[in-house]
Amino acid sequence: MSSKGSSEAWQNPDLTIERASPAFDVEEMTNFIDGGQDKTQVKRKNLAQFSSVASTGSKILNHPSLRDTKATAYMSHEDKYNYNLARATAVLELISEEGMDVNEISKVLSHTVAGFTTPDGNPIAVHQVMFIPTLMNQADDEQMFRWLGDVYNGRIIGTYAQTELSHGTFVRGLRTTATYDPASRTFDLHTPDVSAAKWWPGGLGTSANFAVVMAQLHTGGQARGIHPFMVELRDIDTHRPLPGITVGEIGPKLGQNTLNNGYLLFDHVKVPLNNMLMRNARVHEDGSYTKPPHSKLSYGTMVFTRVAIALDTVDALQIGCTIAARYSVVRRQGEPLADGREPQIIDYQTQQLKVLPQLASCYVLRAAANRLWESHTHVTSEVRGGDMAQLPELHATACCLKALVTRDCSAAIEALRLACGGHGYMESSRFPALYAYATAGVTYEGENTVLLLQTARYLVKQVGGGAAPTPGSSVAYLSRPADDTPFSVGSVAAYVAAFSRVARGRVAEVAARLRADRQRLGEAAAWNESLVLLVETALAHCRFFVVSTFVEVVAAESTSRAIEQVLQLVCRLYVAYFVSRSEGDFITYGGLTASDVRLNRDRLLGLLTELRPHLVPLTDAFDLPDQLVRSTLGAWDGDVYRRMFDEASHSPLNSTEVPRAFHQSIQPMRARL
Amino acid sequence: MSSKGSSEAWQNPDLTIERASPAFDVEEMTNFIDGGQDKTQVKRKNLAQFSSVASTGSKILNHPSLRDTKATAYMSHEDKYNYNLARATAVLELISEEGMDVNEISKVLSHTVAGFTTPDGNPIAVHQVMFIPTLMNQADDEQMFRWLGDVYNGRIIGTYAQTELSHGTFVRGLRTTATYDPASRTFDLHTPDVSAAKWWPGGLGTSANFAVVMAQLHTGGQARGIHPFMVELRDIDTHRPLPGITVGEIGPKLGQNTLNNGYLLFDHVKVPLNNMLMRNARVHEDGSYTKPPHSKLSYGTMVFTRVAIALDTVDALQIGCTIAARYSVVRRQGEPLADGREPQIIDYQTQQLKVLPQLASCYVLRAAANRLWESHTHVTSEVRGGDMAQLPELHATACCLKALVTRDCSAAIEALRLACGGHGYMESSRFPALYAYATAGVTYEGENTVLLLQTARYLVKQVGGGAAPTPGSSVAYLSRPADDTPFSVGSVAAYVAAFSRVARGRVAEVAARLRADRQRLGEAAAWNESLVLLVETALAHCRFFVVSTFVEVVAAESTSRAIEQVLQLVCRLYVAYFVSRSEGDFITYGGLTASDVRLNRDRLLGLLTELRPHLVPLTDAFDLPDQLVRSTLGAWDGDVYRRMFDEASHSPLNSTEVPRAFHQSIQPMRARL
Repeated sequence: MSSKGSSEAWQNPDLTIERASPAFDVEEMTNFIDGGQDKTQVKRKNLAQFSSVASTGSKILNHPSLRDTKATAYMSHEDKYNYNLARATAVLELISEEGMDVNEISKVLSHTVAGFTTPDGNPIAVHQVMFIPTLMNQADDEQMFRWLGDVYNGRIIGTYAQTELSHGTFVRGLRTTATYDPASRTFDLHTPDVSAAKWWPGGLGTSANFAVVMAQLHTGGQARGIHPFMVELRDIDTHRPLPGITVGEIGPKLGQNTLNNGYLLFDHVKVPLNNMLMRNARVHEDGSYTKPPHSKLSYGTMVFTRVAIALDTVDALQIGCTIAARYSVVRRQGEPLADGREPQIIDYQTQQLKVLPQLASCYVLRAAANRLWESHTHVTSEVRGGDMAQLPELHATACCLKALVTRDCSAAIEALRLACGGHGYMESSRFPALYAYATAGVTYEGENTVLLLQTARYLVKQVGGGAAPTPGSSVAYLSRPADDTPFSVGSVAAYVAAFSRVARGRVAEVAARLRADRQRLGEAAAWNESLVLLVETALAHCRFFVVSTFVEVVAAESTSRAIEQVLQLVCRLYVAYFVSRSEGDFITYGGLTASDVRLNRDRLLGLLTELRPHLVPLTDAFDLPDQLVRSTLGAWDGDVYRRMFDEASHSPLNSTEVPRAFHQSIQPMRARL
Repeated sequence: MSSKGSSEAWQNPDLTIERASPAFDVEEMTNFIDGGQDKTQVKRKNLAQFSSVASTGSKILNHPSLRDTKATAYMSHEDKYNYNLARATAVLELISEEGMDVNEISKVLSHTVAGFTTPDGNPIAVHQVMFIPTLMNQADDEQMFRWLGDVYNGRIIGTYAQTELSHGTFVRGLRTTATYDPASRTFDLHTPDVSAAKWWPGGLGTSANFAVVMAQLHTGGQARGIHPFMVELRDIDTHRPLPGITVGEIGPKLGQNTLNNGYLLFDHVKVPLNNMLMRNARVHEDGSYTKPPHSKLSYGTMVFTRVAIALDTVDALQIGCTIAARYSVVRRQGEPLADGREPQIIDYQTQQLKVLPQLASCYVLRAAANRLWESHTHVTSEVRGGDMAQLPELHATACCLKALVTRDCSAAIEALRLACGGHGYMESSRFPALYAYATAGVTYEGENTVLLLQTARYLVKQVGGGAAPTPGSSVAYLSRPADDTPFSVGSVAAYVAAFSRVARGRVAEVAARLRADRQRLGEAAAWNESLVLLVETALAHCRFFVVSTFVEVVAAESTSRAIEQVLQLVCRLYVAYFVSRSEGDFITYGGLTASDVRLNRDRLLGLLTELRPHLVPLTDAFDLPDQLVRSTLGAWDGDVYRRMFDEASHSPLNSTEVPRAFHQSIQPMRARL
């Protein structure tokens, strides 16, 4: 089904009205969101989001191995895994057949598409998303030549094994060792005890047969820090774990249960010298060691993953907004109106406050995540050319944006679920799976608090002294004079100025406090005494970054006046909403008075009314066909109750008139009572 | 295992230190939490929380049908249901054998115990919690005599069927009809279309054979509103659905998947006249109708359920606090300290801010929920004696406290999960199930926004005019002069005054606004224009209620000085934290200045340091044995990593060296690539 349905298809009359005369061209808005008309077309062509694009349109949604979907929530853990792995291998074949590039692959594995192909998590996604990129960045030419053939023909299915049971964020504390023995020219990989077991890598459980293992290198009698090793875990032909290797699945989780996260222990496993990835650091046959040219080079995989998480998590929020918008229009509840019908719930102010700020977030964060993706592409090519200058800025922005996006989007998805009342609690609404996906991003690939502290360290350095920031960088505002535009609820520029003042004020204050405490307490203790303020500072900086990025993007794109006007409304609602969430900060640092804060509250309520008519067109513009929305509450036609009822028919408990449990439990209980 | 372990048992040395010299007597604190030493003893006796109380101690934890627990997360939907139903029938037998009263039953079915007995939700809990109480309150004597024997011997298993697919909160909008025919002396029960199907009742799917069905009564040619009807759904002996009845399970949800929520449709089903529950309203043989004596009488079941939800949700938070406290002490991560060991994460200020305010909430909300339970018991007995005067007050308090508790506790549980990093995402942490349980409370049995608006209506009436509130009621402060104690971060009384000023200011402002708008817009539109303010007003009132209740309870109980001091700290942290979450309100209505708000932020950070040493004793005082905590991260001994590793061994994917999926998916993919 098309994301817009066909003009003849039935739709709920309440949705017909919402769609009858949008104030802007929905297709133009889709182009804006995608980053240009050409990108929308490539997306549709590659992802086959429209069945009407018949010739290229069957790639994913109509692929013979993917077309028939099942309700996996009824399945056992093992059956779910088998179902999702079968579909994941079909996706891998498709990527291979089509010869997709990294951009295309990232779209195919993005949450929008993956929610359809592998609804419970792709057990071999890490092979594409982390294992192959790590080889590309860290294997030397000989190693790439040796492995890439088998990687692409599926004989090698890899994962990336870094985190251990007792170590996640503090990477230097990892305890798996790789001790080099010049005599045998091998490394001895070893896990000292259970708490040092690798734990979490996706696909490691039972799917992968190779891993890039991060371990403490010891050579020439010295500890050299964490390095990557290519290790065969299971025999390629039989898939049996190799001697000395203990590997398995870590068990059930809040969601994404077929990611096949695994554990891994080594009992003195020998790995050949030339299985250490040698593009950057190098161990020679005699055990001598050459350091990498730049200390941050080995973090490339992690930075890339954070950029991808930011994009993917906004994807999840787009789906959530689409569902809540359509349901809020179709659902009627409460004291009947003059026409005898109950009101649409979207016309309650309280419902508007639950839904519309999340929609505004979605637009604002999409623009910021797109910007980060562009920066990443740019910086990566500079790094390949040997220029590392932009790495710290990219790292600092990726850290805080990953944190802000996962935090905001997961909270937004929960708010939208709750806006759908009890029905949002049903799996068939899609919300439980969306939240399980989004909230995982808060703690994985860099726990958010730790990431925000990394950004905070970068910010404090900026005002600490000396080095002038690169013009155009995210921190340039810190070295410019303060923007003293006076606050006014009518002016977006005034809001932007207030956000910048809060961020500046926060950075200046915490930096001053650190300087003062440092003399009294020493470096480490001073830092620890300010952790809460540092986290809040990084968030304030990132909030300013996303606000100012959105304003820039809206100004830069040559959109029609109608599009610009509605984007202005989106922007106004976003800033008013986030001022209302941190009023104390805006009074303390942002130059607002107590009465400004009250005016902002009124303005926020007024903006809800102004944005309300655009809700459905703004979510239709996300261009999501029903197969990707996958929600009984959020389908294009709004036929909510019929879909919910139909969906319930799949329950195995409904397949017999009398459940087995009646004979097994209820009758025996009666006999005993 | 005892909640305190035995003194010889191994425990993580980091926990030994925390427990070595508590500043207060932990047992005395347990008594305070339970509401008295006698209550602690009854709890332990009845619930067998200590295996050392051998004679009465085996009732639940060592019951032969309950002792052996399985990891249900690996099971299919149907197997989970069968497992939980078998255990639920054992619980029902136990309740019957022991002749438990309503207090004891509520403890046995409380979330603390139910998480052990029926981890995925008790499929027949509604029989005890809603069906039987409804019969008790709404069946007349003849009806009770007719049914209660079969109810207690298990031939009748009932549910309470009110909500429909398209109607939840707006009860008067329900569309199931019961039309009386004097000729046959029967009601015709009918569902006009799928959107009017009953949807959600627990146990309705495949477990219950009877339901109290709420339907629109039509008799004597007139619509009489919603009334309760006792309806046989399935043949008692065969469990087959009766003619004209379509019944089944609604499908998978975010959690609590074996509550066996169901749907139900009637196709002109005939129900005898004397199956309408007739204690309050009455239909006579000729179709004439007698109204109930008081319009609120039929809401008794809903009020009781909300009171129970408040208690149960705090139970869930107690478990969450216990887990996060123990894990935060045992988990070490980060740059090593002078002793060469990594820091315990609880010593990071950021971690303290994630954990300690939730612990404070737990203490404060426990006291408020206990108070509500006592009010409910008191008012119910007055109502039985014919005095309805306290019903509106009880209703208003139950509405806002159910809303505040479910909102705060679910957010707190998520914050605690995230405080446990990635490991909190694992089912074995217990957090996913705790959250799924707590967040359900936000939308069921009265969606929170709707409940808060009911409280707001009560508040606005109080200041509207005339009727002086009952002394000692939750709204007495609204008719007293404002408490003008000046704000000071050192004084609890000053904080309490500020919370009361915020609530008063909010109520006065929204009431004035409604008066002004009413003349301009009319009653309904004026109300709708203020919905957001009304919800915020009800929350501010309820926040003041829980703060002042806690202060009163601490003052009233004759605890030791040591207990009182730590409870004062808990209280101080709670108020400082909630001021920091609504700084704009405290500046606008609470009499705080911008500099007070900053002082409060500093005070909050200082209180984290002060409360930190009490964390483990304060959670040990919840008196929860490992079987009820059910967490790899939160066991008494803190042996986190071994437990996580052991738990993973149960994954069916680890039962063979080579997973089936290798032959089914990976080998065929290789052949095709």
